[in-house]
Amino acid sequence: MFDLKEHSHTRLNILTGDWILVSPHRMKRPWQGKVEDLPADNRPAYDAGCYLCPGNKRSDGSMNPAYENAYVFTNDFSALLSDTPTGEYNNSLLQAKSESGICRVICFSPDHSLTLPLMSEQAIEKVIELWQNEFAELSKHSFIKYIQIFENKGEIMGCSNPHPHGQVWASSSIPLELSKETTQQQNYFQQHGKSLLSDYLQTELQQQERIIIENEHFVALVPFWAVWPYETMIVSKRHVQHVLQFTDEEKTALASILKQLTAKYDNLFHVSFPYSAGMHQSPVNDGVHEEWHWHMHFYPPLLRSATVKKFMVGYEMLANPQRDITAETAAATLRSLSAIHYKEQ
Amino acid sequence: MFDLKEHSHTRLNILTGDWILVSPHRMKRPWQGKVEDLPADNRPAYDAGCYLCPGNKRSDGSMNPAYENAYVFTNDFSALLSDTPTGEYNNSLLQAKSESGICRVICFSPDHSLTLPLMSEQAIEKVIELWQNEFAELSKHSFIKYIQIFENKGEIMGCSNPHPHGQVWASSSIPLELSKETTQQQNYFQQHGKSLLSDYLQTELQQQERIIIENEHFVALVPFWAVWPYETMIVSKRHVQHVLQFTDEEKTALASILKQLTAKYDNLFHVSFPYSAGMHQSPVNDGVHEEWHWHMHFYPPLLRSATVKKFMVGYEMLANPQRDITAETAAATLRSLSAIHYKEQ
Ligand SMILES: O=P(O)(O)O[C@H]1O[C@H](CO)[C@@H](O)[C@H](O)[C@H]1O
Ligand SMILES: O=P(O)(O)O[C@H]1O[C@H](CO)[C@@H](O)[C@H](O)[C@H]1O
Repeated sequence: MFDLKEHSHTRLNILTGDWILVSPHRMKRPWQGKVEDLPADNRPAYDAGCYLCPGNKRSDGSMNPAYENAYVFTNDFSALLSDTPTGEYNNSLLQAKSESGICRVICFSPDHSLTLPLMSEQAIEKVIELWQNEFAELSKHSFIKYIQIFENKGEIMGCSNPHPHGQVWASSSIPLELSKETTQQQNYFQQHGKSLLSDYLQTELQQQERIIIENEHFVALVPFWAVWPYETMIVSKRHVQHVLQFTDEEKTALASILKQLTAKYDNLFHVSFPYSAGMHQSPVNDGVHEEWHWHMHFYPPLLRSATVKKFMVGYEMLANPQRDITAETAAATLRSLSAIHYKEQ
Repeated sequence: MFDLKEHSHTRLNILTGDWILVSPHRMKRPWQGKVEDLPADNRPAYDAGCYLCPGNKRSDGSMNPAYENAYVFTNDFSALLSDTPTGEYNNSLLQAKSESGICRVICFSPDHSLTLPLMSEQAIEKVIELWQNEFAELSKHSFIKYIQIFENKGEIMGCSNPHPHGQVWASSSIPLELSKETTQQQNYFQQHGKSLLSDYLQTELQQQERIIIENEHFVALVPFWAVWPYETMIVSKRHVQHVLQFTDEEKTALASILKQLTAKYDNLFHVSFPYSAGMHQSPVNDGVHEEWHWHMHFYPPLLRSATVKKFMVGYEMLANPQRDITAETAAATLRSLSAIHYKEQ
């Protein structure tokens, strides 16, 4: 009989409408491929050569202030610029449109040696406040349609500076993944008068199979359709559209679940766990988006150990995303780990 | 004035319907991030420890024959199996379907030290014949709906054995990327009575801006919407649905363009150039697919040098694929390189 735990199958990602392939038996295959270097551990609290540390010089020649909490500035190498001339290129099958925007860098802490799981909850709250400020400020520009807040953590995720930091890319059009999630959530909201993720959360809380952490205001879980081995999602219990709508209590609860989830990640392989993470929330300057339900995705690449990652290559790039362990196995593993960081135990 | 060469913009991928972000000015940013190891060069022609070399033992205990040309066998760690029980799981927002299939491994050559660009055109023709045989054989199984032929080349692309080889994953449903390409091509064919890629090829041959190599039967180009830095596509001039329809002449021309394109790749950074590559062709056992036009994608990760790749992370995973050099710049670079491999010059 068909069994999700044992047999290859596809699962529906309700947020994008895409199906992903799961091959549970595939972890039995021995690994003879690439083994990554372990990331350097024990960084100093201040690094004179780091362009993100307080008081240091940046590549544009300006100086960072002696900041004490989270600190934000405009990216010196922004992918999106606010003064891009608008225009189009249309040669029937060749179509292009100009894209403008604003890119910002957010230092999470003045302390070069830290990462989110090693910061205090109070310090993480300051980061959340900065995310809120950025969201408020950037949405005042009427040409901005979407604000992507994210973090690339670890060299293996293309992060070029280990100083704890994230980014904000605000764009003049709604990016691909967000268009898909908007459509799916709109369809659901129109049909059911409730948000897609409220109902999904209810199912998950009933089943308890993929839940990792739950607090009063947030749930961290491995989504049923996860594609990265230890992919997770933080969902707010309340149906809010964006980060600005969180109450003080919710802010505190978010800081707490962020610290716990990222500590569990580090505890998994006793290594500073690499990932790309980011919030998904409603577009801005784009009318009403009642359907939108705030959430945050974590996409970590590691599969077998601190040095062996999942390669999303050949079949995944050309045909279909594919994973080797089930979401339920990954969730059970993450659930069983301590929420207190191994360095703080 | 808006200029594709200078200003950030999005471009339409006509094969998927998705838009990708191009930030031409971004290459100016200095790179302080991850630098990969150079792949080992100068492998022996035979490696006693390699499970793909002729006469050696595989992990399931069986022995490879003393094969002389391309050689195929069923993957000992197949992601898709032919005996998966059919079934479904449907709990409203949690939806899954069983997926069965057949996975095969194709050794391109008995010589452990070779890669496609270093093989003779005659030897590459043997590989193409094997692809044709596999396509013919696998499509005889009526439960198979799509046959994905691909190669992961290089450790950095998750390839766990440097012996020249590729894979075939045949599945009981049509994978995501292929569904998208089918829809786009169907829409175009219905409206114009011609294949999407025939008309696209005509535009590209007129403009000559993104063409890398052209021979009597095939064109290698950087697609207008390429997302990987040196992404390319080989398109057949004749509108055929799949690899089995190629004439002997076309087979020879395909072998030739494959050797030339992959040699140019190696010549770019004087390194065995990593990539994932694979054919896209019509589904099988799924009615008539006149709209389909055979092509082959190459997705190579390198960006700046033999050791610095493009990271498709944070913004790309969460929001929108993004590239740092334009398709036209990449095409000009590849076009200017010799089509004769630096080791054969
Ligand atoms: O099948 P292999 O070579 O063991 O594995 C490689 O290719 C597969 C198909 O693209 C991927 O799923 C794996 O992540 C990759 O390591
Ligand atoms: O902006 P950074 O940190 O220089 O660059 C990193 O994040 C970007 C946004 O996800 C990616 O486009 C780059 O490939 C990656 O190296």
